[in-house]
Amino acid sequence: MIKVGIVGGTGYTGVELLRLLAVHPQVQLTAITSRSEAGMAVADMFPNLRGYLDLAFSDPAQAKLEDCDVVFFATPNGTAMKLVPDLLNAGVRVIDLAADFRLQDPQEWQQWYGEAHACPALLDEAVYGLPEVNRERIRAAKLVANPGCYPTAVQLGFMPLLEQGLVDTTHLIADAKSGVSGAGRGAKVAHLLCETSESMKAYGVQGHRHWPEIRQGLRKMTAESVGLTFVPHLTPMIRGIHATLYAPLQKTGQDLQTLFEQRYASEPFVDVMPAGSLPETRSVRGANVCRIAVHVPPTGDTVVVLSVIDNLVKGAAGQAVQNMNIMFGLEEDAGLKTIALVP
Amino acid sequence: MIKVGIVGGTGYTGVELLRLLAVHPQVQLTAITSRSEAGMAVADMFPNLRGYLDLAFSDPAQAKLEDCDVVFFATPNGTAMKLVPDLLNAGVRVIDLAADFRLQDPQEWQQWYGEAHACPALLDEAVYGLPEVNRERIRAAKLVANPGCYPTAVQLGFMPLLEQGLVDTTHLIADAKSGVSGAGRGAKVAHLLCETSESMKAYGVQGHRHWPEIRQGLRKMTAESVGLTFVPHLTPMIRGIHATLYAPLQKTGQDLQTLFEQRYASEPFVDVMPAGSLPETRSVRGANVCRIAVHVPPTGDTVVVLSVIDNLVKGAAGQAVQNMNIMFGLEEDAGLKTIALVP
Amino acid sequence: MIKVGIVGGTGYTGVELLRLLAVHPQVQLTAITSRSEAGMAVADMFPNLRGYLDLAFSDPAQAKLEDCDVVFFATPNGTAMKLVPDLLNAGVRVIDLAADFRLQDPQEWQQWYGEAHACPALLDEAVYGLPEVNRERIRAAKLVANPGCYPTAVQLGFMPLLEQGLVDTTHLIADAKSGVSGAGRGAKVAHLLCETSESMKAYGVQGHRHWPEIRQGLRKMTAESVGLTFVPHLTPMIRGIHATLYAPLQKTGQDLQTLFEQRYASEPFVDVMPAGSLPETRSVRGANVCRIAVHVPPTGDTVVVLSVIDNLVKGAAGQAVQNMNIMFGLEEDAGLKTIALVP
Amino acid sequence: MIKVGIVGGTGYTGVELLRLLAVHPQVQLTAITSRSEAGMAVADMFPNLRGYLDLAFSDPAQAKLEDCDVVFFATPNGTAMKLVPDLLNAGVRVIDLAADFRLQDPQEWQQWYGEAHACPALLDEAVYGLPEVNRERIRAAKLVANPGCYPTAVQLGFMPLLEQGLVDTTHLIADAKSGVSGAGRGAKVAHLLCETSESMKAYGVQGHRHWPEIRQGLRKMTAESVGLTFVPHLTPMIRGIHATLYAPLQKTGQDLQTLFEQRYASEPFVDVMPAGSLPETRSVRGANVCRIAVHVPPTGDTVVVLSVIDNLVKGAAGQAVQNMNIMFGLEEDAGLKTIALVP
Repeated sequence: MIKVGIVGGTGYTGVELLRLLAVHPQVQLTAITSRSEAGMAVADMFPNLRGYLDLAFSDPAQAKLEDCDVVFFATPNGTAMKLVPDLLNAGVRVIDLAADFRLQDPQEWQQWYGEAHACPALLDEAVYGLPEVNRERIRAAKLVANPGCYPTAVQLGFMPLLEQGLVDTTHLIADAKSGVSGAGRGAKVAHLLCETSESMKAYGVQGHRHWPEIRQGLRKMTAESVGLTFVPHLTPMIRGIHATLYAPLQKTGQDLQTLFEQRYASEPFVDVMPAGSLPETRSVRGANVCRIAVHVPPTGDTVVVLSVIDNLVKGAAGQAVQNMNIMFGLEEDAGLKTIALVP
Repeated sequence: MIKVGIVGGTGYTGVELLRLLAVHPQVQLTAITSRSEAGMAVADMFPNLRGYLDLAFSDPAQAKLEDCDVVFFATPNGTAMKLVPDLLNAGVRVIDLAADFRLQDPQEWQQWYGEAHACPALLDEAVYGLPEVNRERIRAAKLVANPGCYPTAVQLGFMPLLEQGLVDTTHLIADAKSGVSGAGRGAKVAHLLCETSESMKAYGVQGHRHWPEIRQGLRKMTAESVGLTFVPHLTPMIRGIHATLYAPLQKTGQDLQTLFEQRYASEPFVDVMPAGSLPETRSVRGANVCRIAVHVPPTGDTVVVLSVIDNLVKGAAGQAVQNMNIMFGLEEDAGLKTIALVP
Repeated sequence: MIKVGIVGGTGYTGVELLRLLAVHPQVQLTAITSRSEAGMAVADMFPNLRGYLDLAFSDPAQAKLEDCDVVFFATPNGTAMKLVPDLLNAGVRVIDLAADFRLQDPQEWQQWYGEAHACPALLDEAVYGLPEVNRERIRAAKLVANPGCYPTAVQLGFMPLLEQGLVDTTHLIADAKSGVSGAGRGAKVAHLLCETSESMKAYGVQGHRHWPEIRQGLRKMTAESVGLTFVPHLTPMIRGIHATLYAPLQKTGQDLQTLFEQRYASEPFVDVMPAGSLPETRSVRGANVCRIAVHVPPTGDTVVVLSVIDNLVKGAAGQAVQNMNIMFGLEEDAGLKTIALVP
Repeated sequence: MIKVGIVGGTGYTGVELLRLLAVHPQVQLTAITSRSEAGMAVADMFPNLRGYLDLAFSDPAQAKLEDCDVVFFATPNGTAMKLVPDLLNAGVRVIDLAADFRLQDPQEWQQWYGEAHACPALLDEAVYGLPEVNRERIRAAKLVANPGCYPTAVQLGFMPLLEQGLVDTTHLIADAKSGVSGAGRGAKVAHLLCETSESMKAYGVQGHRHWPEIRQGLRKMTAESVGLTFVPHLTPMIRGIHATLYAPLQKTGQDLQTLFEQRYASEPFVDVMPAGSLPETRSVRGANVCRIAVHVPPTGDTVVVLSVIDNLVKGAAGQAVQNMNIMFGLEEDAGLKTIALVP
């Protein structure tokens, strides 16, 4: 059994990690820390876990995380980078679900996250945890930077096109719609039911932290320069991301359906749907899968990719468990064979 | 492996059965019938099943249901009763998720369902599939009548009180709130998102088919006569039933918390929550569990029981799988160890 | 034109008052105070008001409320009672949408609101602003205590029955379901979309502040003693209250439909629906009306009343405007002829 | 008073017309037809209208529509074109909320709507009812083709850019999100709450009927050729359209904010929001207004316009009333001074 610790288990990615790991056949949850809730039974905060998890939140100082085989960070941005070096030194492997190790350039990190990076030397060592790109490097990684939710959906949707040089990469558009859980479990007026239900809005048009992360990833897929317009939208639902991706086609007549199917043929968690499909976010609710459909509308000069994930699963906790499975040589789908909840 | 057939797999209880059975470790799904959709891959209708289920809907006439060990009926009321006798004769065990075998009195059945019962002789043989009441009889049953969703939540909530004679059974009130999936997957204006979202309404005040079913169950729990007022409500959510139960207390000062805890101590799928709890339906979303809290408000003369289930799981497909597990001597929670999806 | 001031315009009852008063034909909005937002244009916080309201929030100290004809308080409980005496002394009439003047017994107020009442002498002078009960007293009132949302729906539903002595008042049950806006616009985790959407829960079973308010009102309708069990529920929608009321009938065979129709025949904002109706909360969304249906289920010994309001309109701001209209001798429906938004 | 008839009053645009016209100060509703519901009181189907509308649905054959001053068609596509010629001949003016007269080319109409146009000669006479483009022609029109919901939001968003030649019109992208009411009140499984709530999906990627309508409108704004990719999405809410528009900028450094403000300075129902705004669809819920924000993200070469409307108001019934007001020389905002319902 792999001994697992979780730092920061009170947010939505935290409880989702708990849901997955509590029934993972090869995992022993040994510690879940929360400074504010130390001593409280986890199942008192999240009654859905009653009967499956007997742990209480513990104070980070007493949690003995250094005895774990792997520690997940489900903390706000800027927390993990202060604690990770000591854990790595103690031989503990780390998967960070926040953004601390996602950008490789410390200057860029500082620009978008508003403080100097605490351990820039680790940025090179950290492996960006998108298995469809970095599976081999993840296998050996000590420190995995789990991708953001939008970046997962957008990169998987654009990847086959960029790798094959089929689109004009200078005018990529990613119009992404996310459920409200992407905004976290913080007490903010803006995310009350009465502020977000029955309404749709864009946000972050002038700059969202996932934009540099996506751009960094896209740049590795192509030799061309990358120009990306990214507009996220807050959608009145709890879970789910629907990324609608637009790119000008360089040449027409390509069999994009086959291209996508072949690119992802051996990927356990990317599902290229049949030609003409219109994926729904509910088809991945609770499941660790990205479903993709590729379309060329009648005008013929633009490709449209529809890419859906559950932001808390393939966009966060599920992908983190997938990374853990790869790192420890387990079946990649161990603990992840969950069918999406429909309706 | 148990060979399982499903008759009527296109409704919400049908797809929920598929979600549970497709990953059940001891089940082999051999046939799913649908007259209207014969030939269509099940996963084309329900893409959440892609990768987990490779079956197509088959015509009932060709489905060879008689080769199954057990057949689930997820059909409209009045369908199963016409097909069950032949299956039983062929040695197939049957679990009916509709109402055909729930009422023991054929006159009462006819009154509420509007046609004569097709096989009244089977009503005595059928076992009402509420494991918390009938576990031993279910074990040996050839034909199980899977309870309705409201009846499950209401009976489990009232049971300890009636069994112990603690309440005036002539003035029981069950105010129940259900998500819209309880109304099924039929094309009705009344259940469009635009008709049901952002609104709450009562229905069936003058008589709902679950009322005689609940009353029949309550009568078996007490020697007293039973007077029940049952008002169901349509609630703007997909899944979940919240039953709020009221009964006048016969005597005060009872330790109801302990009573409930003891009654359900060995039940794997009834969770008596700590004193003072306020169960949320989301805490059981997708999970085969009934969570219950018992309260005596300050007036002191009335007990209030809060009982929540997922209408499609403990209120339908999950309970059906639980019954199958009991009938075939499997672990009662085989295939049912799913943690509710929160958020 | 009546000069109107609003204290505390940043919550949901505040913005609802603004929506109604900004287009009221006989009102001139002269001040809206908010300590925290002083200087901000109201329409910057609530863009739905763009083009209809040109005011900015002002600091309470500079708002010259004493020059108003009437001041509405849309503040947290305990605020108005500290400011009202000075305004009354200045000849300003006051309508308090909070609870400060709803209970007539200062001890009871202290028990439920956790502090001593600041001006108990005014509790007698304050008129409880339920026009269907107190219209004449409201006309002359200097200080109106606008009723709570649950109390409005519950009292209007029970009133004809209690006034006529038709029910056993010792076992009244009010099972009430409210949209989340009833919880206010405060930044609380419990009211995030991800915590409240797709879920239903009871709360306040051990005591809710509206319970003594309802009981006080019911006691005035009957000479009998009143025993009331009140269970509110949080419902996944923004607006609306559905109160389902249960009472044991003292005698059977009464024509309750006619009784209700006659009781409310001349009430502009109570709509007794045709026999057999099942009112939906959306039928009152945005409108200042309480729709009621009265049922006797087949058991015959219990009456069920279904009473729906928009908690922010007839349950708060609309009723407050109705009270203002009465106080100033305007048409009672001035500014309130809004048809509910369906769908 | 203007005598108004409505053909087809049972859908969502129909009931919305009724909501607006029932309290319009210069309108007398004289007939509402519905073949299927003839004889039923309109308020029995839509209880929100109780107290405001005393009409019953009448059979089209007996409705005496020829005595009306204006008739609105809120019928399925293909109905109005068969009835309009007779009404025009009788001197009745017509506003069609369906698509029958929106496309000027009868071949194109046939291609998208699947049957030959019944009165192609009227296509030239019909005026496309977008007041911001055609106000003067609407004033004199006998027959107004009320625009579609998506076309309203998209055309108003792109118009200032195309009129001024600021963007590359060959690569326009309109990513539009609509509430489910846009799909109408038909009984379809696909629009049940349980199919659409808590999920997001694109549709019509291979061709949507609003695409040729939008393209026709855009072509009139520019001398350049127009290439438009249009992807509509079904969003889990009742009302609202959020159009996110993307266009490559021809030259940088333009003051787009001022351009938009000036273009719409005298428009009563287009609200150009302050620079940096992120309009929410709820800010227009129930109101006849299009709110627009214009952004240039940091990359600098692409303009992003955010345009929101209520699909049933500015996208349908409200715009139809606006057109009626123009046609009959009334104040353009008569009956339309409704503030959006927030929250």
